[in-house]
Amino acid sequence: MDSARTASPKRPTVVIIGSGFGGLFAARALAKDDVDVVLIAKTSHHLFQPLLYQVATGILSQGEIAPSTREVLAKQKNATVVLGEVTAIDVTAQTVTASLVGEQFTQPYDYLIVAAGAAQSWFGHDEFAEYAPGMKSIDDALELRGRIFGAFELAEVAAKEGRHDEVGPLMTFVVVGAGPTGVEMAGQLVELSNRTLRRDFRHISPADAKIILADAAPSVLGSFHPKLQDATKKSLEKLGVDVRLEAMVTGVDERGITVRRKAADGTTTDERIEAVTKVWAAGVAASPLAKQLADQVGVQVDRAGRIPVQPDLTLVGHPEIHVVGDMMTLDKLPGVAQVAIQGARHSAKEIRRHLKGEPTGATFTYFDKGSMATISRFRAIAEIGSIRLTGFIAWLAWLAVHLVYIIGFKSRLTSLISWAVSFIGRGRAERTITEQQVFGRQAIERLAEIEASAAKRAGTDAA
Amino acid sequence: MDSARTASPKRPTVVIIGSGFGGLFAARALAKDDVDVVLIAKTSHHLFQPLLYQVATGILSQGEIAPSTREVLAKQKNATVVLGEVTAIDVTAQTVTASLVGEQFTQPYDYLIVAAGAAQSWFGHDEFAEYAPGMKSIDDALELRGRIFGAFELAEVAAKEGRHDEVGPLMTFVVVGAGPTGVEMAGQLVELSNRTLRRDFRHISPADAKIILADAAPSVLGSFHPKLQDATKKSLEKLGVDVRLEAMVTGVDERGITVRRKAADGTTTDERIEAVTKVWAAGVAASPLAKQLADQVGVQVDRAGRIPVQPDLTLVGHPEIHVVGDMMTLDKLPGVAQVAIQGARHSAKEIRRHLKGEPTGATFTYFDKGSMATISRFRAIAEIGSIRLTGFIAWLAWLAVHLVYIIGFKSRLTSLISWAVSFIGRGRAERTITEQQVFGRQAIERLAEIEASAAKRAGTDAA
Repeated sequence: MDSARTASPKRPTVVIIGSGFGGLFAARALAKDDVDVVLIAKTSHHLFQPLLYQVATGILSQGEIAPSTREVLAKQKNATVVLGEVTAIDVTAQTVTASLVGEQFTQPYDYLIVAAGAAQSWFGHDEFAEYAPGMKSIDDALELRGRIFGAFELAEVAAKEGRHDEVGPLMTFVVVGAGPTGVEMAGQLVELSNRTLRRDFRHISPADAKIILADAAPSVLGSFHPKLQDATKKSLEKLGVDVRLEAMVTGVDERGITVRRKAADGTTTDERIEAVTKVWAAGVAASPLAKQLADQVGVQVDRAGRIPVQPDLTLVGHPEIHVVGDMMTLDKLPGVAQVAIQGARHSAKEIRRHLKGEPTGATFTYFDKGSMATISRFRAIAEIGSIRLTGFIAWLAWLAVHLVYIIGFKSRLTSLISWAVSFIGRGRAERTITEQQVFGRQAIERLAEIEASAAKRAGTDAA
Repeated sequence: MDSARTASPKRPTVVIIGSGFGGLFAARALAKDDVDVVLIAKTSHHLFQPLLYQVATGILSQGEIAPSTREVLAKQKNATVVLGEVTAIDVTAQTVTASLVGEQFTQPYDYLIVAAGAAQSWFGHDEFAEYAPGMKSIDDALELRGRIFGAFELAEVAAKEGRHDEVGPLMTFVVVGAGPTGVEMAGQLVELSNRTLRRDFRHISPADAKIILADAAPSVLGSFHPKLQDATKKSLEKLGVDVRLEAMVTGVDERGITVRRKAADGTTTDERIEAVTKVWAAGVAASPLAKQLADQVGVQVDRAGRIPVQPDLTLVGHPEIHVVGDMMTLDKLPGVAQVAIQGARHSAKEIRRHLKGEPTGATFTYFDKGSMATISRFRAIAEIGSIRLTGFIAWLAWLAVHLVYIIGFKSRLTSLISWAVSFIGRGRAERTITEQQVFGRQAIERLAEIEASAAKRAGTDAA
């Protein structure tokens, strides 16, 4: 039964890139196969991204949504977890090259499952990132936590010192992107200002904070049924969120944001919103590995940088390479966890069939288990096939799904209790602002710029 | 009864500097007095420092030992919490100047309680700090967490890639300083390598990690009874910790550490230890505010930068200024939480008496409630007066004291459960390594250097 112990010299290697939903579920799906699984990922944790906004708003600690990948796979004897950022895939040599703290290493593969996911996209305006951080990693969430709680701290001092003109911008929060993450973030910012922080300050009233949710689209939650979109918008507005639709962000700077709004007659006006804290929850761009693979196999990536795959999730001409999750495009499948998870299981099954000499190339069929988004405590929306739920019942459904998921990974009662307590109560256990959250990333980026320009200068001098 | 609501224009202001044990307990002790309490601190949290090593080793999240100061004092109507780093105290004008993100503000006081604590000291070798971070703040603990878990990740890749000479230094951990923090850290590193990570790797065996505890002193836990020192040393050695006493650190660099050891005949030899991960738990230096105050009132700080105070904890000639906790020196009181807490209560009482026109100047008497240190799960040492405990019973005492304390602040059952689960079980919930932990501080420091040298150059150019 324990196939790991019956290793033969010809035992094939399945390399998996990424520790997200796709990568981790692929590894698990291969647990009983006579293969060596090598999972290479650039973070040492698996990230339960749907709850990232709860880390950003102080409900959960990073460990509660980011179990160590190594720990999750510790008992799976045929799996090796390797920390490293994959920088190159050579489809001819069948190798993957990764680097870790400047050291490179190369890993050959017999089968490859690429599940490197997607990063935040600022739609060609990467300069926005400095002032409107994304919501894709633990670092993002901790940085936003520092900015959000920090904004109230700064507002308190400004109000105390009579610098009243600074208070408004410090207490205005703009969330860009009205997908599930943006909606959840906006809802939590309301909870934070209206409940958690309500009595904590002396010179400001946190409940006066303005929460703005902006999106270029004409509705919130674009992928949901119009009835749920309307219900969500109304819920948000009832909570006090200023929902601005058909508002395209055209500028972001330290002190605010500019949106272009379209009037009914088609004319546009630029509107300036003074807001120190901005959260970018708008677009995604596939891992650059998608482009690299596309160039090698002769296909074109789409606008979001995703690589088109065959109906069986392999690359054209390369049945040994599977691409799953957010970095591939096929039949307009959405960029959600279930597509990655089911794709990973499909690819694992295909590899198993190939190992057994059975015919492969089965078409991947996605089973839509439904989608959901929370708006606030006790209020969510859910869409399961033609069933549409709103309010408390949807929230219960949302809760059940997430509880089951978290239990599966963490097996830790404490996360659940901590979560329940924070969620139902008023408190936030995780409000710590660290220096590194606040200044770390800026410093890292600035340093990279300086080094790049120094290298350039050195090059010029040498010439 | 609610004195906060009967404010009069002449209501005196008590400014407290610091949100550590001294600052926070001083604020609380003044809850029912007819004063405005303004607590100014450079972090937004109170830090329960005795458990910092548990954050560094992944048992607890930062929020669990660092409640928001604002939240702790939310219900105390006469208290205002202000985030800011105090840069100057003017004892003549009776003002405190603080800065927050470059903005300065000045706060007048009628009474001042200075409780700014102490920072890590590298005994004049600040260059060691880059390679051997201290253990005094949440940032320190998160950075160490990243380094510790990261070292095992790097060792795994090095072993996998056949770079065997790198594995040893990556799996050697040196803790400098054999006080309670150093002992607890060393014990936890053993737990981590022997239990938590035991089965998580494929190319290294974490149990092979070498944990070295070095101190220049001839014994561990210098402030405890010799019997407890011996018991602790034996316990550590039984766990596999390499305890090196009379070993003074003379050099620290990226790859290792040099210690000077004294032989029985008085000769010294320099010994090189190859170790990537170093933890500095050795010395402390009082906040620079101590020196600033000392210069103004005409006294001298001691070697650790602490200011001598009068027997009533006030400064000579300034009965309105109280200094409590780690930044003052009086009668060789130890730098422990209880001295700060009891000092804070004493000062609050003195202020109350002064407000009532009663005689002040009462001598501060410290009641030693005892001290303790954990070595590992189920094993600690404790000294309460002439009572000395070791092993399991001491561990239970240690547990009881810390539970009571944590409950007092957090009122959160979940922290306790999470703590109990991690402590008794094998798991560590908080293993997340963030980019900012790993590279953030280095980048911040490097950037500061570059800016300083650029400013210097600009100055030279202008001249």
